[in-house]
Amino acid sequence: MKKIDVTEAIFEIKKAKGLSWETIAEAVGMSDVWVTSACLGMNSCPEDVADKLVSFLGLPAEAKSVLMEYPTKTWDQAIPQDPLVYRLYEIVGVYGDTLKEVIQEKFGDGIMSAIDFSMEVDKEENPKGDRVILTMNGKFLPYNAW
Amino acid sequence: MKKIDVTEAIFEIKKAKGLSWETIAEAVGMSDVWVTSACLGMNSCPEDVADKLVSFLGLPAEAKSVLMEYPTKTWDQAIPQDPLVYRLYEIVGVYGDTLKEVIQEKFGDGIMSAIDFSMEVDKEENPKGDRVILTMNGKFLPYNAW
Amino acid sequence: MKKIDVTEAIFEIKKAKGLSWETIAEAVGMSDVWVTSACLGMNSCPEDVADKLVSFLGLPAEAKSVLMEYPTKTWDQAIPQDPLVYRLYEIVGVYGDTLKEVIQEKFGDGIMSAIDFSMEVDKEENPKGDRVILTMNGKFLPYNAW
Amino acid sequence: MKKIDVTEAIFEIKKAKGLSWETIAEAVGMSDVWVTSACLGMNSCPEDVADKLVSFLGLPAEAKSVLMEYPTKTWDQAIPQDPLVYRLYEIVGVYGDTLKEVIQEKFGDGIMSAIDFSMEVDKEENPKGDRVILTMNGKFLPYNAW
Amino acid sequence: MKKIDVTEAIFEIKKAKGLSWETIAEAVGMSDVWVTSACLGMNSCPEDVADKLVSFLGLPAEAKSVLMEYPTKTWDQAIPQDPLVYRLYEIVGVYGDTLKEVIQEKFGDGIMSAIDFSMEVDKEENPKGDRVILTMNGKFLPYNAW
Amino acid sequence: MKKIDVTEAIFEIKKAKGLSWETIAEAVGMSDVWVTSACLGMNSCPEDVADKLVSFLGLPAEAKSVLMEYPTKTWDQAIPQDPLVYRLYEIVGVYGDTLKEVIQEKFGDGIMSAIDFSMEVDKEENPKGDRVILTMNGKFLPYNAW
Amino acid sequence: MKKIDVTEAIFEIKKAKGLSWETIAEAVGMSDVWVTSACLGMNSCPEDVADKLVSFLGLPAEAKSVLMEYPTKTWDQAIPQDPLVYRLYEIVGVYGDTLKEVIQEKFGDGIMSAIDFSMEVDKEENPKGDRVILTMNGKFLPYNAW
Amino acid sequence: MKKIDVTEAIFEIKKAKGLSWETIAEAVGMSDVWVTSACLGMNSCPEDVADKLVSFLGLPAEAKSVLMEYPTKTWDQAIPQDPLVYRLYEIVGVYGDTLKEVIQEKFGDGIMSAIDFSMEVDKEENPKGDRVILTMNGKFLPYNAW
Amino acid sequence: MKKIDVTEAIFEIKKAKGLSWETIAEAVGMSDVWVTSACLGMNSCPEDVADKLVSFLGLPAEAKSVLMEYPTKTWDQAIPQDPLVYRLYEIVGVYGDTLKEVIQEKFGDGIMSAIDFSMEVDKEENPKGDRVILTMNGKFLPYNAW
Amino acid sequence: MKKIDVTEAIFEIKKAKGLSWETIAEAVGMSDVWVTSACLGMNSCPEDVADKLVSFLGLPAEAKSVLMEYPTKTWDQAIPQDPLVYRLYEIVGVYGDTLKEVIQEKFGDGIMSAIDFSMEVDKEENPKGDRVILTMNGKFLPYNAW
Repeated sequence: MKKIDVTEAIFEIKKAKGLSWETIAEAVGMSDVWVTSACLGMNSCPEDVADKLVSFLGLPAEAKSVLMEYPTKTWDQAIPQDPLVYRLYEIVGVYGDTLKEVIQEKFGDGIMSAIDFSMEVDKEENPKGDRVILTMNGKFLPYNAW
Repeated sequence: MKKIDVTEAIFEIKKAKGLSWETIAEAVGMSDVWVTSACLGMNSCPEDVADKLVSFLGLPAEAKSVLMEYPTKTWDQAIPQDPLVYRLYEIVGVYGDTLKEVIQEKFGDGIMSAIDFSMEVDKEENPKGDRVILTMNGKFLPYNAW
Repeated sequence: MKKIDVTEAIFEIKKAKGLSWETIAEAVGMSDVWVTSACLGMNSCPEDVADKLVSFLGLPAEAKSVLMEYPTKTWDQAIPQDPLVYRLYEIVGVYGDTLKEVIQEKFGDGIMSAIDFSMEVDKEENPKGDRVILTMNGKFLPYNAW
Repeated sequence: MKKIDVTEAIFEIKKAKGLSWETIAEAVGMSDVWVTSACLGMNSCPEDVADKLVSFLGLPAEAKSVLMEYPTKTWDQAIPQDPLVYRLYEIVGVYGDTLKEVIQEKFGDGIMSAIDFSMEVDKEENPKGDRVILTMNGKFLPYNAW
Repeated sequence: MKKIDVTEAIFEIKKAKGLSWETIAEAVGMSDVWVTSACLGMNSCPEDVADKLVSFLGLPAEAKSVLMEYPTKTWDQAIPQDPLVYRLYEIVGVYGDTLKEVIQEKFGDGIMSAIDFSMEVDKEENPKGDRVILTMNGKFLPYNAW
Repeated sequence: MKKIDVTEAIFEIKKAKGLSWETIAEAVGMSDVWVTSACLGMNSCPEDVADKLVSFLGLPAEAKSVLMEYPTKTWDQAIPQDPLVYRLYEIVGVYGDTLKEVIQEKFGDGIMSAIDFSMEVDKEENPKGDRVILTMNGKFLPYNAW
Repeated sequence: MKKIDVTEAIFEIKKAKGLSWETIAEAVGMSDVWVTSACLGMNSCPEDVADKLVSFLGLPAEAKSVLMEYPTKTWDQAIPQDPLVYRLYEIVGVYGDTLKEVIQEKFGDGIMSAIDFSMEVDKEENPKGDRVILTMNGKFLPYNAW
Repeated sequence: MKKIDVTEAIFEIKKAKGLSWETIAEAVGMSDVWVTSACLGMNSCPEDVADKLVSFLGLPAEAKSVLMEYPTKTWDQAIPQDPLVYRLYEIVGVYGDTLKEVIQEKFGDGIMSAIDFSMEVDKEENPKGDRVILTMNGKFLPYNAW
Repeated sequence: MKKIDVTEAIFEIKKAKGLSWETIAEAVGMSDVWVTSACLGMNSCPEDVADKLVSFLGLPAEAKSVLMEYPTKTWDQAIPQDPLVYRLYEIVGVYGDTLKEVIQEKFGDGIMSAIDFSMEVDKEENPKGDRVILTMNGKFLPYNAW
Repeated sequence: MKKIDVTEAIFEIKKAKGLSWETIAEAVGMSDVWVTSACLGMNSCPEDVADKLVSFLGLPAEAKSVLMEYPTKTWDQAIPQDPLVYRLYEIVGVYGDTLKEVIQEKFGDGIMSAIDFSMEVDKEENPKGDRVILTMNGKFLPYNAW
């Protein structure tokens, strides 16, 4: 089994049992964003989480070590096409320099880590149309001089 | 004057007067992220904001109408290179499919708007290293069937 | 079954039964453009439409939930090659800035949504050669300042 | 004077006099979309239209022949970035195969011409948000066998 | 059967029977260039031609409707590599602007159609080396003002 | 003076004197396609042609040696955008494999030279719309085995 | 059998029998570079060479006609990556303009043919490290004026 | 002065004095290919060669140190377009794998250096058309295991 | 067996036996970086190393000659995406010109070989977070003048 | 003054005074690699270093604040061309997956930081040819689960 096989098995089980990512996340005690990324093969599971995923979903035993493998993170499209993902890319394009100005003004010369990082998605109900609240939380890493 | 000229004038004044984006934002009563993007030429100012920016910064009068012009939003690098901006691009690459799963589970088939949208940057102090909190807030737009 | 399998099944049935997209569209009570896009896997069907498609075409029962899945919308060619599609791309290239000028003059700073959107194709008979009338209808979304 | 110089002159005069594309279009008796494209240097003017544009806008006499020159139609971005133009590109990507199916079902094997072509933009007022109506009208060109 | 399957079947039969494109073209009463393009899946056959091709070559009956299908015309290499095809690409690169000057001087603002189009290849014997004569014949399409 | 300067000088003189490429070509005793390409800087002139061009057009004396320089032939767009040039590119894409089949059937394994090459443009009047006749004439070069 | 199948068969036999390209070349009476290219499917064999290759290597009879087929010459990487091949690409990049200067000074305006062309690889023993001697031999083709 | 300025000065002097690369090369006692590359800014001159170039050509004294600077070697076109240079690129594409096979058979696992490297161009007179003989000479570098 | 098959076999055995690259490297008496690269198919093994790898890991006998084959070194992504590899690419981008300045100041005009080259990875324990020490060791190759 | 202006001023002074990067580095008490990168505009200087650079080199006072500005780090060539830099890129391509295996085996799932990072270049004298020793030192950053 490779990560892609485990991902496909999870999608089949999820559909057959009518599970949501939220339910799976609660069952293993992690956030829905992170669990989804691990199930999509974009993060490695600590052993206890792998255990819980295998038993909650009824995955084959072999899936445990696959979930724990360190993934090679790649994506197919340098410029994403699906509208939901493209809009995020567009935000990076339109606001990238702005965020550089604002973050470096508040923190100094450095970056927001994408490794020591977490993210969550919330729903804000609104009579004019509900709103997606996407929160990223990354450690600030200052540049080094030597 | 074109938008780029106004942007350069703002950078010069900002440096000469030792202003921060935060100060400028407070002076015109808008958020620092949005004001920075408008000063970088990536958003158009409502008339009252343009008035306040011109008078607070001491820009030439001609700058007002330029700040109000509707920008053509473009960026130079399809794949950004500056590490701060690249990390955001990487997050879209690594977590794009994950966000599609999670957002569409919570909201149905549709996207988070990048137009009816706002964003803010906060600093979370932390003894192990401060953290950047980046919050995006976009209207959910459901797909239409016809 | 995945969306691509349902699409192939539909093409086979459509050819075997000599159906047109127009006939299929009428049978399910939606427009021909939208129905075609859903059959090509580029839009998700509301449950009742999925039901009607399955029964009208005689698709396997499993196809219903597949038709209802939220698609990942991607296309193979950043610059399309088939002449019919390329001409549309060329129109965007040649007239893109023009449309930005005209739409934003009429509506203000914002865009035409491609999500809250519909489109139709009509035939105008003309002795010098029939004409294709392609009508797009998208909600205007004004930019937000915050 | 080159086309780009005439375009810049037109933008300056348009701003100084507070003219809209619609007003300019009415003054020369053509549609606003076409006039805008000609002013942006993407179409050549028939002599009478060039005359009217020069006199209505007060362009230098030399501009007349420049407006009549046959343009080389190019655009900077193979994948457009400005959100208004990108959404049109996205529509071509998402619905390109759909339009090929529907147009060729109605007309036979061939394409919609982007040369023998016109386009208009209308505003449909709507309490839930006004809508952009974009109508393309192109001659159907059947493929030749020989 | 898809177009690619019919193309492969034709290549096998053509090799097995020692046929040339010229012979096939004569058998179906069309030019060799067009017949070859139809056999390669780049043009759709009128019904009578499809009938003749199927019977002359001894293709399976199912091939008839496949030959009549409207093809999606695509090619693998944006910049072709095979030397024979690259030289044609090079001619377009080296002489593209020249042809624009000369054609538009002779015909006005417009293009040579690639749809209402035919092409032939002839051999000119020459003691210094035979010459390829490639003749393209396309309808001139003038641009429209509206 | 560089080739681009001579080209610009020629365009100015050509416009000021109302000359056509055809007239210039006749004056120097070469074809219009080749003369245009030499004036655009894509071919080098033999000395006598350079002499005639300089004297017929009234170019500065220095232009003679520039016209005789061997050009570096490049073009800006790997995939051309102007519709007139794109259609030629599209023909290479759609018919490239076809031409390889037909030319190699008639001549053997080899290519049509783009160096030992000439081309002409003719106008065929036709009540349904005039037609562009584009004729390429290149030496066949057989591959070498060693 | 396609060219790729013949190539794979040759590699298997070559390894099993412990043959070198040099031995194969001698057996068929051609140079090692050309024979290798023909075995890799990048050149077509004259009939007698195809006969000798088939009998010397013990290929299936069907391979003969495949070796004689005219290849479509393509390569996977526009910028090659394997260090041996990249260095050749780098030489073209670094010395391309230099070679244009030197060749055209010696021969006039034209090119070195890559079709009427041969190449050989020799080994020069040298105590400081052996040296690769790569010799290309191509017909000079002068540009044509017409 | 930068390398590009020295190159332009050399081209002007070379044209004004009617010098050839061969003459310049003889004057400084180096090969014509290497001297041309140094004059084009693609190699650095040893001090004595720089001295000779400056005095033979009558360059400004400042040019000496510029000729001795270590160049940054870059080229504009990943895929070259000028036909003379493209043919070399095509040879790398068509024969790259062949050369890897032949060189590594003769020398073992390694590459031909493009740094410890020289190259020359010769003219072979031939009644059927003169031939360009291009000889590359590079040190073989074996891969290291550690 | 091809290199990819041997690589997959090694990964399976490595996982089944719980081996580390370090253990494998020690068993065959080479460094861990080089052994890993050879197992990934990016370097060829000397015969004795191939022997040891086959016997230590229990690979099929056929793997020996495959491990000794000279690899074609290619990679999928011109711009790598996995964060660990991207950071190395970013270092080349950010510090490439810097390294050129510093290396050429210390060594003269030339390069660091990537062929006569070795590399090692060490771990520096550090209470603030362990550090990766990556050391490259390549022969300096001076440019040649001729 | 912008960073590029300061860089050019430094290069001029460095050449005029015959300084090396090593000397400059010693004068300001930092490593030569880092100082070079800061002078090339790829790192920001702490205030005391900026002071020392300005006074040691005799830069205009305005340069101090420019040296302290946070740079936007970009590079022109996604795939570098200068051979010295390309070899580094090639090492990333050839050994990227290897380094991922080895680093993650030693440290766990995570990356080597390119921000909390330093690098040095050393010269190892060797009778067979001196060797470049390039040492990178980056903090290991483990991935976060949440």
